[in-house]
Amino acid sequence: MKSKVLELLKNCTSFISKEEISEKLNLSRQIVSKYVDQLKEIGYDIQVIPHLGYKLISCPDRLLPFEIQDKLNTKIIGKKIHHYDLVESTMDVAMKLALEGACEGTVICAEGQTKGKGRLGREWISPKYKGVYFSLILKPEISLNQAPIITLLTAVGICRAVNRMALVSASIKWPNDILVNNKKIGGILTELNAEQDRINFIIVGIGINVNTSKSLLPPNAGSLKSETKEDFSRIELVKEILRDIEHFYLLFKKKGTQPIIEKWREFSFLTGERVEVVCQKRKLTGVVLDVDSDGSLLIREDSGFIKRLTAGDVIRVR
Amino acid sequence: MKSKVLELLKNCTSFISKEEISEKLNLSRQIVSKYVDQLKEIGYDIQVIPHLGYKLISCPDRLLPFEIQDKLNTKIIGKKIHHYDLVESTMDVAMKLALEGACEGTVICAEGQTKGKGRLGREWISPKYKGVYFSLILKPEISLNQAPIITLLTAVGICRAVNRMALVSASIKWPNDILVNNKKIGGILTELNAEQDRINFIIVGIGINVNTSKSLLPPNAGSLKSETKEDFSRIELVKEILRDIEHFYLLFKKKGTQPIIEKWREFSFLTGERVEVVCQKRKLTGVVLDVDSDGSLLIREDSGFIKRLTAGDVIRVR
Repeated sequence: MKSKVLELLKNCTSFISKEEISEKLNLSRQIVSKYVDQLKEIGYDIQVIPHLGYKLISCPDRLLPFEIQDKLNTKIIGKKIHHYDLVESTMDVAMKLALEGACEGTVICAEGQTKGKGRLGREWISPKYKGVYFSLILKPEISLNQAPIITLLTAVGICRAVNRMALVSASIKWPNDILVNNKKIGGILTELNAEQDRINFIIVGIGINVNTSKSLLPPNAGSLKSETKEDFSRIELVKEILRDIEHFYLLFKKKGTQPIIEKWREFSFLTGERVEVVCQKRKLTGVVLDVDSDGSLLIREDSGFIKRLTAGDVIRVR
Repeated sequence: MKSKVLELLKNCTSFISKEEISEKLNLSRQIVSKYVDQLKEIGYDIQVIPHLGYKLISCPDRLLPFEIQDKLNTKIIGKKIHHYDLVESTMDVAMKLALEGACEGTVICAEGQTKGKGRLGREWISPKYKGVYFSLILKPEISLNQAPIITLLTAVGICRAVNRMALVSASIKWPNDILVNNKKIGGILTELNAEQDRINFIIVGIGINVNTSKSLLPPNAGSLKSETKEDFSRIELVKEILRDIEHFYLLFKKKGTQPIIEKWREFSFLTGERVEVVCQKRKLTGVVLDVDSDGSLLIREDSGFIKRLTAGDVIRVR
């Protein structure tokens, strides 16, 4: 009901009286007052003038579930959202919830993380209120070796959402970096829980540097702000990303990997590039040919042989 | 120190005085009395006669960590053992501990389970003090698609241990049943946690019906007792199984999948048999040819085509 009160306030360009809210929502005036106080506490700037009533001046920049869910219009993703001010890692919270049976599409987001997780045990710097950091629980009926497609479709979803919103040309650096102007602005981490012959759930973790200043970030990283000199609404960005991930997730469910791979190729940063890859302590050099239908990277080595990589760190070389 | 007191009692065929124990272990007499009381509480039958001292009459049939670890002589497996009287499922406890960073080789065992887990969400009936139910945390440095080898080597380890101890001919029914006289006496459940390009840990769950009477079991199941008419020490069985799993785990680490697969074939119940397989709602009939190096089952269909199955329920048909 609190979000109903908020909705009324949002839809009203001028003042709305306590009586009107109370009547429209069939709530007592005391309860209306209480909800307005609670909204103010969360950070909503609400002007109160006796005899006139309430007027919403501004909304806080917080990833509040009812803000994200407002006109989200998704079928699965984001139907349930858990919001935290500060956690060690949304991945760990998501893992716990998933093991306890959280349903598909559940989102766990935080304003900041003290131990944000990157790939291979690395850290994802997650300063409070600057970026978006969330984990998403999916339960696709796929086999273990199909799991990488979930990372691919997430990357595609993020790129499309970021490009539409920030008017940039985001690209994907295999396996899971999102780049803008050659700077890493986002990353994806996938963790899964499986029995030998079925995936119980996959947790997709997403970190995007949105309004983060460069001084807070590692040397090769950037943010949407550092690359565009603009600030962005983190709430709108999360909504766009959730919608686009769902779009490609449903597309994958309906039509398989092919359309995902095709879209992935469009966004691929590395295709045709000369790269050096470090993979399980070995190093190889070659030209990136393509990504395979199972998400592995195809590289033509200098010797002429084509290598299929399922893991590794890729560096572009000249 | 309590286990040191127990060791002294075990090594002494007659009575041993409080003074002697106190001197040998450099403990006060009060502490010796306290430890003896604690041992009696756990279920050790210790006779106490003034002026003579203590005599161990019998040990309880409990999977106590210090009993399992006594002369276990493994390198990795069982160095750390958590013991519970009754849990919902050792898999869930192991999952929690593994996520909190429990080290490789950690064993979680219980006297009984109220929601013992079988494959594909089925239940594993786990009456108290009758079977052995434990989970084992492993952290092999292998890729996701190599994960099934861990189930295979566990099956091989169990068969070898059971055969040596109970003088039966246990066999493996793909993917993870252990049979004696065509009755299912044991099962393996593998759960894993992974990032897209590395396995964080694998939990191997093992359930063996040891002294369980048939009336407590499902129709097609049996126990070591039902098949041999003998009772077995559950502690000794756990020890043997841990040793044999470690043997094949180290063998795999050193020499790869080949020797595991070869051993697996020796124990395979299905090779050459005509079977019906239900796999993802489809059904196929054919003859089992072999198991592949990645753990999948190779079946020659009646049409002549050879199918590779990574999952499914197999029924032998005539």
